[in-house]
Amino acid sequence: MTSPLSNGRASTRVNRCGAKPRSASGMPLPATIGFSLTTSTASNYFPSRAALLAALAERIFDRMAPDPVVLADLGRREPSLALMTDYLRYVVERTTREPDLTRALFELRLEASRRPELRRALGDVLRRGYADDVAFHVAAGLPGGAFEVSLLHYAVDGLLLDQLTTSIDAGFDIDQVVSALVTRLVGAGG
Amino acid sequence: MTSPLSNGRASTRVNRCGAKPRSASGMPLPATIGFSLTTSTASNYFPSRAALLAALAERIFDRMAPDPVVLADLGRREPSLALMTDYLRYVVERTTREPDLTRALFELRLEASRRPELRRALGDVLRRGYADDVAFHVAAGLPGGAFEVSLLHYAVDGLLLDQLTTSIDAGFDIDQVVSALVTRLVGAGG
Repeated sequence: MTSPLSNGRASTRVNRCGAKPRSASGMPLPATIGFSLTTSTASNYFPSRAALLAALAERIFDRMAPDPVVLADLGRREPSLALMTDYLRYVVERTTREPDLTRALFELRLEASRRPELRRALGDVLRRGYADDVAFHVAAGLPGGAFEVSLLHYAVDGLLLDQLTTSIDAGFDIDQVVSALVTRLVGAGG
Repeated sequence: MTSPLSNGRASTRVNRCGAKPRSASGMPLPATIGFSLTTSTASNYFPSRAALLAALAERIFDRMAPDPVVLADLGRREPSLALMTDYLRYVVERTTREPDLTRALFELRLEASRRPELRRALGDVLRRGYADDVAFHVAAGLPGGAFEVSLLHYAVDGLLLDQLTTSIDAGFDIDQVVSALVTRLVGAGG
């Protein structure tokens, strides 16, 4: 997944409930945006293919946002490695529950390596997601900091790539893998 | 990268120097196979698009194989976390030096999620790569085992996805990241 620790991002969304989703360029997105958007409709809203694809990425983030009720439950617990593990479990649950969306984000990242305009727009979305994740992590008092968030981000992206595309079939339980990633990458740090 | 710890695989290759590369189905690959292969030539060698794509994946692995001289130098050192880190550094060096090949492997894995026939063939290649990595790791007496190899595999895949497609731009030195991944994922295990 592109922003596995998107709890922070999501909590921002929760705080501005009711605000309309916006594209990376700040343009309001039509409520109906989705894979079935026609070319003629699209050209009314998006100045370029890259702008449309970046908005699609943003929309995917929104669709995978966490449930505020689950977040509130997690937020009541004392910060610990166990809590961090549960946050990660919830990220993996949401991203693997919507495999097509997660794969679409991988596709967009690859596509962006061929299209500078998309790379700029998608890069903005990803950088903001990571910054939100770090801010959430620190505000929640979770162990570790920006470096640990980046390590977890890479590891979970790779795990999702394995689970949602072609797997090496290492044969270990995913929950055991997630738990080990948090315990070792965050617990062994600093 | 798809098989980041492909040292084991490569050392197998080194052992059978002189043997012609073979496709996943065991079919010998023409020496000239590459991105410029024409359709008519391809159809003489490959029964299906999936077979061609799987052979392409195998060929990419071969092209990113380590230099036997470098491997021999590393192999003379005592097994340790420091040695493991140097193996990983060499994996990252090879895969980022050929960004188009590494990205092509990501593309193939995504494509395989839409094509069952490719998924089977590519899955064979990836599973064998992982099994070779584990066998190499154990034979070299490196710390950790199959579980640690899988964790490193995911983390390095995610790191390469970040570095070679659209990045979260976390801003940390890649060498520092690789070193932390090995120290924490392998050193903190067991």
